Amino acid sequence: MDNKAIDVLYAGRFIELVSLSGWEYARRSNATGVAAILPVHTDGRLVLIEQVRPAAGGPVIEWPAGLVGDEGDAESHLDAAKRELLEETGYEAKVWELVGEGMSSAGLTDEAIVFYLAKDLMPSTEGGGVGGENITKHEILPDELTGWIEEMKRVGKKLDLKVYAGLGMLNQDTKEDQDGS
Amino acid sequence: MDNKAIDVLYAGRFIELVSLSGWEYARRSNATGVAAILPVHTDGRLVLIEQVRPAAGGPVIEWPAGLVGDEGDAESHLDAAKRELLEETGYEAKVWELVGEGMSSAGLTDEAIVFYLAKDLMPSTEGGGVGGENITKHEILPDELTGWIEEMKRVGKKLDLKVYAGLGMLNQDTKEDQDGS
Repeated sequence: MDNKAIDVLYAGRFIELVSLSGWEYARRSNATGVAAILPVHTDGRLVLIEQVRPAAGGPVIEWPAGLVGDEGDAESHLDAAKRELLEETGYEAKVWELVGEGMSSAGLTDEAIVFYLAKDLMPSTEGGGVGGENITKHEILPDELTGWIEEMKRVGKKLDLKVYAGLGMLNQDTKEDQDGS
Repeated sequence: MDNKAIDVLYAGRFIELVSLSGWEYARRSNATGVAAILPVHTDGRLVLIEQVRPAAGGPVIEWPAGLVGDEGDAESHLDAAKRELLEETGYEAKVWELVGEGMSSAGLTDEAIVFYLAKDLMPSTEGGGVGGENITKHEILPDELTGWIEEMKRVGKKLDLKVYAGLGMLNQDTKEDQDGS
């Protein structure tokens, strides 16, 4: 799409509000993309994180994820995924697999997120995030996930839709494996 | 959270860019929420839509969805879901079930989306959207979905992450039914 047609209405430090063909949307000004990670232990446990998000007014349950190239250097989505998994959970993974990509909310933002499955997890550092992110790690068996999500909501925590999106991708991925494709 | 602490950096016609505790995010100024619909035919076919999104630079595959209360009157999420399903697909549904809720992208926006499963679909109108939305309807069997998504991507269409999120919710919902809970 012709970049000249985009009108920057306001440029914040991290986010710009732009207009294109009369349609307003938000875009990040400090990153070249977003990578999310679906970390799965060999026993099936999924690794989710919890962090306080000002936009949510409190703690949000999410997959580990982060901005690509926000630290100044050129960076691939996969390298960002590896960096964020280590920073946020303290894990390194032996096996990485691209499992999906999509837009966060196409009516509101051009943000697109690339998802990686991370397997064979090995503890490496403390985790918890960088720069005061104060991230908590949760490790949940798939069979216990629905009940656990309900409990999280009951105590006032919010859920990022990427949690469900990741589950949908893992399920599609498993189906493909079963089909032998 | 104390509303006074939110600093409006720029108020667009539809979206505001705000700052809270030094954290920038986008919020909608013309709606009280967002509702998404997972329409499932009795034979299992899922109903997805396709529309051109300026933020995506082209067509995007999504679930039917829309803003709550953007037409001036107070409106419930469920009423908005029923209105949007009819406007976008031409279907009415006999059975409605709340299946999930979550934030689109908690680092970028306060947008939260409520998902409804819609069953026993009956054709009622032409669909296609309102005000030049020009929406195309796709009806896909679950087993064919992964291949179909790949084909859509191959021809340059983008995918909204809510497609995967809805699949994750449908899968969790099916598991609960099987567990008898």
